[in-house]
Amino acid sequence: MSLSENQQTDTPTSIADSRRSHERLPTIQLDRLKRNILDLAKIGRNEGDRGIYRTAFSDADMEGKRWLLEKLESAGLEAISDGAANISGILPGKNPEAPRIMVGSHIDTVPCAGMLDGALGVLVGLECLQSFKEQGFEPECDLEVIAFSDEEGRFGGMFGSQALCGKITPETLHAKSDLDGMELGEAMLRQGLDPVRALEAGRDAESIQAYLELHIEQGPELETSNSQVGLVDEIAGLFKWIIRLKGEPNHAGTTPMRLRKDALMGLADFAHEIPRILEENGGERSRATIGKAQILPGSPNTVPGLVEFSLDVRDTHPDTLAELSDACRKALSAISRRRGLMFEFDVQSEIEPAPCDPRLVEVMESQARQLELNYLKMPSGAAHDAQTMSSIAPVSMIFVPSQNGVSHSPAEWTAWSDIEAGALLMKSTLTKLAQSH
Amino acid sequence: MSLSENQQTDTPTSIADSRRSHERLPTIQLDRLKRNILDLAKIGRNEGDRGIYRTAFSDADMEGKRWLLEKLESAGLEAISDGAANISGILPGKNPEAPRIMVGSHIDTVPCAGMLDGALGVLVGLECLQSFKEQGFEPECDLEVIAFSDEEGRFGGMFGSQALCGKITPETLHAKSDLDGMELGEAMLRQGLDPVRALEAGRDAESIQAYLELHIEQGPELETSNSQVGLVDEIAGLFKWIIRLKGEPNHAGTTPMRLRKDALMGLADFAHEIPRILEENGGERSRATIGKAQILPGSPNTVPGLVEFSLDVRDTHPDTLAELSDACRKALSAISRRRGLMFEFDVQSEIEPAPCDPRLVEVMESQARQLELNYLKMPSGAAHDAQTMSSIAPVSMIFVPSQNGVSHSPAEWTAWSDIEAGALLMKSTLTKLAQSH
Repeated sequence: MSLSENQQTDTPTSIADSRRSHERLPTIQLDRLKRNILDLAKIGRNEGDRGIYRTAFSDADMEGKRWLLEKLESAGLEAISDGAANISGILPGKNPEAPRIMVGSHIDTVPCAGMLDGALGVLVGLECLQSFKEQGFEPECDLEVIAFSDEEGRFGGMFGSQALCGKITPETLHAKSDLDGMELGEAMLRQGLDPVRALEAGRDAESIQAYLELHIEQGPELETSNSQVGLVDEIAGLFKWIIRLKGEPNHAGTTPMRLRKDALMGLADFAHEIPRILEENGGERSRATIGKAQILPGSPNTVPGLVEFSLDVRDTHPDTLAELSDACRKALSAISRRRGLMFEFDVQSEIEPAPCDPRLVEVMESQARQLELNYLKMPSGAAHDAQTMSSIAPVSMIFVPSQNGVSHSPAEWTAWSDIEAGALLMKSTLTKLAQSH
Repeated sequence: MSLSENQQTDTPTSIADSRRSHERLPTIQLDRLKRNILDLAKIGRNEGDRGIYRTAFSDADMEGKRWLLEKLESAGLEAISDGAANISGILPGKNPEAPRIMVGSHIDTVPCAGMLDGALGVLVGLECLQSFKEQGFEPECDLEVIAFSDEEGRFGGMFGSQALCGKITPETLHAKSDLDGMELGEAMLRQGLDPVRALEAGRDAESIQAYLELHIEQGPELETSNSQVGLVDEIAGLFKWIIRLKGEPNHAGTTPMRLRKDALMGLADFAHEIPRILEENGGERSRATIGKAQILPGSPNTVPGLVEFSLDVRDTHPDTLAELSDACRKALSAISRRRGLMFEFDVQSEIEPAPCDPRLVEVMESQARQLELNYLKMPSGAAHDAQTMSSIAPVSMIFVPSQNGVSHSPAEWTAWSDIEAGALLMKSTLTKLAQSH
């Protein structure tokens, strides 16, 4: 049985069915949404590992963009592509001058991806606008569904949303290259795109009244708490350090324990300080991860003389992040003194937390109640285009559960019933927002 | 100023000078010993990194062997080479049937080595026998200085001493290959040597009454304790494991701390158990080292799902090693249960501890007292040919201080005065042993 057949068997249409009797509840065509998800998933799919390979500006990514443009057009939307190769479909509103409501995500993928991730948010946006169009719904302002370029980071990530927010300059454009050294500009030129046009993709903050994004959770919390949807009220910021602890490489047989300056023991000490640092300075939404570590010289019979490791710390509040940063630095400094190590670190990235717009979250919450959904208000621990968009527009996000918390893998999945619940909540929220002036 | 000029400036001849008045104190020609050390160090030396490259059966190693054969011959010794390409020089004794006394080490090196390590022990042995010859000393039994093949491990290590102890079989011979996949047999054939002849290099235990080896300490203890020589009374055994802890790779931003199965935290836990395990089950001579570790998938924003690391544990007593092994297994098992990890390990090697012969240590100690040397009785934490030789003969070792504890590096050094002290102790010990019946 294929993956799609298997997953189609657990397709309840219960939510729409059970509420047919209620007045004014939103409807979507779940079968069409499913077909679109499965069709887009064929583009860039490797039959060997069953993973999807649509890294930004690859041939498969471009094929996905063309597929999407056709879908938008055949849905009766105005399909356009901007200078950053962001793909949009517009449903005109009664007042074209009014700030528009945007909904979207991205369709590029990491290597060996699953079929949901960003694609789901784009296709849910498409389904909402297409069903509005079919149902003759007339929004007060333009509605726009958008698929942003390179969210996943072949060239650093968030390229499309950064361009739309006017954050791309000739310098940043030039600095972006992939792991093989291919420059973003070169990759765009090879696809017949003029990279300089990305500088023209910027929009005015006044032109957008809201940006909404539906995304898979990529974590275990919704599943663990038996929730159908998550209402994202904050998007975590982060700091990422590369830390080096230098000790002395010595012979494992001849160097007494008391005379060692073992860099790995410094790493172990710091790993053990993390729970204390989070308890003292952070909260339930704080995360700290040592995900990468290199031990040198890396010989079984040599005491490690150098460890280089990453530290990724996230929280939804800037003050908490600052306190966590201080506490990490103090701990590293104390450990180094105690163990006779030298300590240095480079800041690899710092991203400010982004609060979601309280009014948007409130609307989403009231719609979720009306739809009788089990929902959880939660932060987004991962970065999304919504985080970038928050610099010029009010944003909020809807999460749907990730089975086993898995993402960025062919095993990534969300039950169709949860996808339906998320899509209905998105449509309901868009309806509410598009009816107000 | 060159390294050798620099180091010649701190050459005291004080020990021999100050004791010229005493009767029957040994003498060696320190200048000749120095010249031999510096001359042999030119063979295989890379002028770029100033390291010596005489890995076993390389062209430079063979040139070293030829150089040594000439030195032995011109010293008036009987120079021979056995089937394992061990190089020996023999000073015949009054009774050629009596079990002989052997002294030696190896002249092969690790890549980018310093000039002492094994070479020092061989050249001190040569100096002792050459000065015996010149001084007309007639030992009761044959004295043999030997340089063993591949101690350092291009093909696994201890090849020459294993062959002499009769431990090489056609199977083990065939199984030995270097990191580039070159088989030992092929490497020997390329140097005009017949590998099958290594099977004929074995000697009877009855033919050897003692094996003595002088070696640099490769650790900091002699320097730290201001000792001129170390009298090795035990050679540590070891066990080496490759341990795998499996958790779950998850997104660093979306996975709450309490829902993680972080394999790196398991490694940190175990690193922190090491001091307790040594305190509870080991002693001052116990060592435990995690020298190599790989963290997977190794992405800064992914919770580590797998760590694979080495564990090298050494002690001089078999029972202690067994207790340490039990305690490590229990700790790993408890950590895995607590953290929700899976745990497995492979035993990579196990080497039994080798006690040095108490009578030999006693003779060395009485000679060290007579020479008024500052000595320290100590274990050898590193493996040496003496460990292999202990299977067929009584052994003991003399250590000389390693400056800053450094070895296997161009920075490896021992003060000439300490080298002289070690050589005088070796000659004095050989004199004592060779005079008894």
